[in-house]
Amino acid sequence: MQELKARILAEGQVIGCNEVLKVDSFLNHQIDPQFIMRMGKELAGRFQAAGVTKVLTVEASGIAVAMAVALHLGVPVVFAKKKHAVTQQGGLYSAEIYSFTRRETVHITVESRYLDARDVVLVVDDFLAHGEALHGLTELIKQAGAKLAGAGIVIEKRFQHGGDQLRADGVTIEALAAIEKMEPGHIVFAE
Amino acid sequence: MQELKARILAEGQVIGCNEVLKVDSFLNHQIDPQFIMRMGKELAGRFQAAGVTKVLTVEASGIAVAMAVALHLGVPVVFAKKKHAVTQQGGLYSAEIYSFTRRETVHITVESRYLDARDVVLVVDDFLAHGEALHGLTELIKQAGAKLAGAGIVIEKRFQHGGDQLRADGVTIEALAAIEKMEPGHIVFAE
Repeated sequence: MQELKARILAEGQVIGCNEVLKVDSFLNHQIDPQFIMRMGKELAGRFQAAGVTKVLTVEASGIAVAMAVALHLGVPVVFAKKKHAVTQQGGLYSAEIYSFTRRETVHITVESRYLDARDVVLVVDDFLAHGEALHGLTELIKQAGAKLAGAGIVIEKRFQHGGDQLRADGVTIEALAAIEKMEPGHIVFAE
Repeated sequence: MQELKARILAEGQVIGCNEVLKVDSFLNHQIDPQFIMRMGKELAGRFQAAGVTKVLTVEASGIAVAMAVALHLGVPVVFAKKKHAVTQQGGLYSAEIYSFTRRETVHITVESRYLDARDVVLVVDDFLAHGEALHGLTELIKQAGAKLAGAGIVIEKRFQHGGDQLRADGVTIEALAAIEKMEPGHIVFAE
């Protein structure tokens, strides 16, 4: 998506030994809602024919994009929670994910009433890097007995290979911008 | 907002010794994006004349509603973060908030580049209960030297008095549904 690539080039900062792309002027801390809606529409279009019944993401920065995708697909969002809240009751699906940006393992959960074997689930997230969140979310889908429709990602850092295994398994992963390599002042997108 | 009250009555569960309202079928865990957009439009309309330049919320469950409000006001969202990430650099505003549903104190932060003295800030959140999040967010606004436009809340549990002090100080707090009292099977809304 050309608009996204232009904003990454204009506003993105490469930090953390060329491992981390900071785009919190429009995606991760400050959100540009109109732009998020355009990205959601674009991702939704790529999965229009997949029969999606639910969009699944994980709190927090995936929520805005997931909502925009779900709005355009006309389905609900479910966001996996990272902490147990007193409001969580009943059966839970759960998985562990490691966050490289936060340097910690978190336990993610979804209440079983919100995903089941009739669902066709599109995973949506802001980033695909090492694939930790994506694998955690697909694990929840597996536990639910639901079908994975694919993954819709805003920015894929392809050089961190988080999508390799799932693509090899035949899963469709769509990214609005895929980065082949990056260093401060120099970001190279995939074709 | 009549549609919200109807959904609270149909889907809400009163738990935790009548302190907690569980509405995670459309707001806190599963999200109904079309409904969130209607609620965002309604809240935006109530602050249309306030000259809002930013919508401020705190991750995670405030983000969807905040995005919908900001979309209708044509301004960015900033969401305060609950954990330090390696992507956070530069000056930070910070405050402590206690979460009754999670039974812990969390440190919330906003990078100073995303709020400053020229901003007129509308706080948006899914719930107003004891007012912990609201007070933490207004503290960040104070640190930025920005102006508080008011607070737009989806569900206010008025019996927990989280809005009392700010209302006494002249702050406009709008809630789409305000609950006077509740127990399992019986929820009473304010006029």
